[in-house]
Amino acid sequence: MKLLQELIEIDATSSVPVYLQISNAIIAGIRQGKLRKGLKLPGTRELGALLEVNRMTVVAAFQELDAQGWIELRARQGTFVKAVPPLLAPLRIMRQTTPAGFSETVGFSYDKKRILPVATSDFQSTHRLVFNDGFPDIRLAPIQELGAAIRNLSRRSVNRKYLQYGGAQGTLLLRQTLAELLCDTRGLAVTPENILITKGAQMGIFVAGSVILKPGDEVIVGKPGYNMADITFRQLGARLNEVSVDGDGIDTAKVEQLCKKKKIRLLYVIPHHHNPTTVTLSPERRMHLLHLAAQYKFAILEDDYDYDFHYASRPIMPMASHDSRGNVVYVGTLTKTFAPAVRFGFIVAPADFIQTATYFRKTVDTQGDSFMEHAIAELYRDGTLTRHIKKSVKLYRERRDHFCDLLKAELPGHLDFTIPDGGMSVWARFRADLKKVSPRAFEKGLVIKDGTSYDSGRAKYNAVRLGFASLDLKEQEQAVGILKGILGTV
Amino acid sequence: MKLLQELIEIDATSSVPVYLQISNAIIAGIRQGKLRKGLKLPGTRELGALLEVNRMTVVAAFQELDAQGWIELRARQGTFVKAVPPLLAPLRIMRQTTPAGFSETVGFSYDKKRILPVATSDFQSTHRLVFNDGFPDIRLAPIQELGAAIRNLSRRSVNRKYLQYGGAQGTLLLRQTLAELLCDTRGLAVTPENILITKGAQMGIFVAGSVILKPGDEVIVGKPGYNMADITFRQLGARLNEVSVDGDGIDTAKVEQLCKKKKIRLLYVIPHHHNPTTVTLSPERRMHLLHLAAQYKFAILEDDYDYDFHYASRPIMPMASHDSRGNVVYVGTLTKTFAPAVRFGFIVAPADFIQTATYFRKTVDTQGDSFMEHAIAELYRDGTLTRHIKKSVKLYRERRDHFCDLLKAELPGHLDFTIPDGGMSVWARFRADLKKVSPRAFEKGLVIKDGTSYDSGRAKYNAVRLGFASLDLKEQEQAVGILKGILGTV
Repeated sequence: MKLLQELIEIDATSSVPVYLQISNAIIAGIRQGKLRKGLKLPGTRELGALLEVNRMTVVAAFQELDAQGWIELRARQGTFVKAVPPLLAPLRIMRQTTPAGFSETVGFSYDKKRILPVATSDFQSTHRLVFNDGFPDIRLAPIQELGAAIRNLSRRSVNRKYLQYGGAQGTLLLRQTLAELLCDTRGLAVTPENILITKGAQMGIFVAGSVILKPGDEVIVGKPGYNMADITFRQLGARLNEVSVDGDGIDTAKVEQLCKKKKIRLLYVIPHHHNPTTVTLSPERRMHLLHLAAQYKFAILEDDYDYDFHYASRPIMPMASHDSRGNVVYVGTLTKTFAPAVRFGFIVAPADFIQTATYFRKTVDTQGDSFMEHAIAELYRDGTLTRHIKKSVKLYRERRDHFCDLLKAELPGHLDFTIPDGGMSVWARFRADLKKVSPRAFEKGLVIKDGTSYDSGRAKYNAVRLGFASLDLKEQEQAVGILKGILGTV
Repeated sequence: MKLLQELIEIDATSSVPVYLQISNAIIAGIRQGKLRKGLKLPGTRELGALLEVNRMTVVAAFQELDAQGWIELRARQGTFVKAVPPLLAPLRIMRQTTPAGFSETVGFSYDKKRILPVATSDFQSTHRLVFNDGFPDIRLAPIQELGAAIRNLSRRSVNRKYLQYGGAQGTLLLRQTLAELLCDTRGLAVTPENILITKGAQMGIFVAGSVILKPGDEVIVGKPGYNMADITFRQLGARLNEVSVDGDGIDTAKVEQLCKKKKIRLLYVIPHHHNPTTVTLSPERRMHLLHLAAQYKFAILEDDYDYDFHYASRPIMPMASHDSRGNVVYVGTLTKTFAPAVRFGFIVAPADFIQTATYFRKTVDTQGDSFMEHAIAELYRDGTLTRHIKKSVKLYRERRDHFCDLLKAELPGHLDFTIPDGGMSVWARFRADLKKVSPRAFEKGLVIKDGTSYDSGRAKYNAVRLGFASLDLKEQEQAVGILKGILGTV
């Protein structure tokens, strides 16, 4: 305890948040060998009192340390310093660091504040129970099949060519495969020239945004909306116009009013399972948006990140499939189909746009992993991924039903939600203050966000996406059980 | 022939280059089923006469078709339409395309000209003999080992967590492994906080450039220099100041003059095996640059893309290892070590810069493929990659020696070059016009660039990088043999 008090010096005048000052000091202590593996850290209340900071600040520091992999939380036992992997012998690094003196801060001038801060390691935790933002269950990911596909490819020397530089637009075989698939399942009559392979939907948003937007351009987003898209557009210098989202999706009458007032360059929309609210954009509003886009010549960036996961009836066809005038840039991803760590997505748009986007993408990272793209294409072609999607949809539908039943039965009066037609999460509006619920749940072994990342400006929802797809039925019961215990006392 | 004449309509007033009009028309013909698999296309001279365009324009169209994988060049037989992969049944796509009518052009307004055009599929060819820009021999790539590492990882369920979202900065294990490696081999006394994992060196350039540069900022680059870096900085809105590169690297006296005249924000330099000239920056100039950077507070973006491949003596330590003031942002890559299609690189810099760069990277593509990052780390930790590098360096040294001997013996008087200390290519300045040599070589089964991509503004070098590392000794002899035949007659 005394040691921790010595290690952690809090500078109230610093621009570094206090919780980060605490976590950084603890990391330094671990690295210097002062805090050894297996050391039990004091409880958050105790450490808070010792450092004279709010207990919530200590919890935030522990969440950060947990996300970065420095500590381990054992239920009913406490918080422990984790083993530092053997390669990073702490003393050795320190010994080598000192003489050469790698600088801790930059010596050149640049405008650091231009880059917007974002959470860079959310949802990483050693906790077994995590309500993530709506991610697939990685225990189901067809990673063995991917490994086998890579092995099969690598056995035949003719496939070695896929290890050489390919094109920035993506492997032709994967583009052909997706063109066929999008044709058959989403009514998108496209050819490989209409497709750019990206690293996940996020790169689709970034590349499309970079190509379309100039600093000062006006963009329409939903409110509430997808935080990372908003940050990306702001990072690109765009001005954000927030339009409210109701049970039928984004309010297109308000979009029309905005179009009459200013030159809108781009509208970002998630028509299926809107993030965060999970609502589906109604067919009337889809047509209205397409009509407005044609009239006012703006781009619709249609983010259809989990089209494959629809439980109610048939999913509604993407807006892009009804767009004969070239107003829609359509973004999809394989992240939800496969696994978040397997980064594949795509942009679908008129061929001239795809060519321009490909130019830009080449400056970002040259090209994708073409060998892997080829392996993914093979998994589509031999039916593996289609079978995997079918199996997952069946399982996730069960999990959704079970989870919604649980919420109704166990937490009546504590939260409001609508059963989602698809996707992997429930948008839950809480009565109790989530900023209090979140740290308490964390201490009991359950990760649940405090909801602030969904807020925007003055709009506070006190709501959170409860990802149900990655928890099996028993884990759902445990997680809801923990919540029930907390909500009864907050 | 008549069919081709009908298919190909050239519009001299179009902004699309004529060679692209030709290749696009041929692709449309293949897709519509009018040009069947195995069809022999007319020779370039004949087709040029038919279309009333220069023969070189037809060669350029064929090079494009070859790079995109639509045609096949068989030595001494001619050019043939390639098999379209079965999934893309051409008639079926056409049938589906017509009714839905996916738009061929965009319907929204955006400033397309802001995005700089670049070659997006260079060096792809069905030719067996390719003088690439200096790439590794993919026949040696440890892809079987990578497949095995992925399989081993996927067998243990504890590793499944690497399939979930990780952090935008990259897997901790890989950052730890690289920190150790850079410490031991490059004198970089860094910790994982100093490292951001990227997709190849290009993403390192893009992310560092995006964080440091504002539109209008002044950047210094070498002349000749690395084309893709120049385009990236221009795309970011920077103003380029070209400083000549001589036998000792970039002329630092001229850099100093520039610093006195204007506020320089960033200097981009490749101190080892400069691209394209392969020269090494002298130790005196390295120190001079570090001194200037500290004095004028600019960033040095040190691109050390093939540090591992040095044949003469020990490589010179990176400038970053002598930088105690935090002026250097160091970019490295595993592309040359592994294979171009396996996209891993890294940025090394003071921790506060890495944090800002990580924020930005999250908006680009969220994060890397963490499962794969983990597998790569394992291949370093078990010694596989170190053994692979050692073996490759030995082989590439032999190939360099054999290739330089060949150039001297077979092509005396036709070109000038200096034997490179390292890297995978020879910078060869030709007597004969490369714009004539390149298409002739192409027709004889050898891909060699026409050199224009190395030119900048009015500076024409008539020089080309001859990648020797990916050709075995016999292939080198065949390639040089073809060049000899052409150079004797140009």
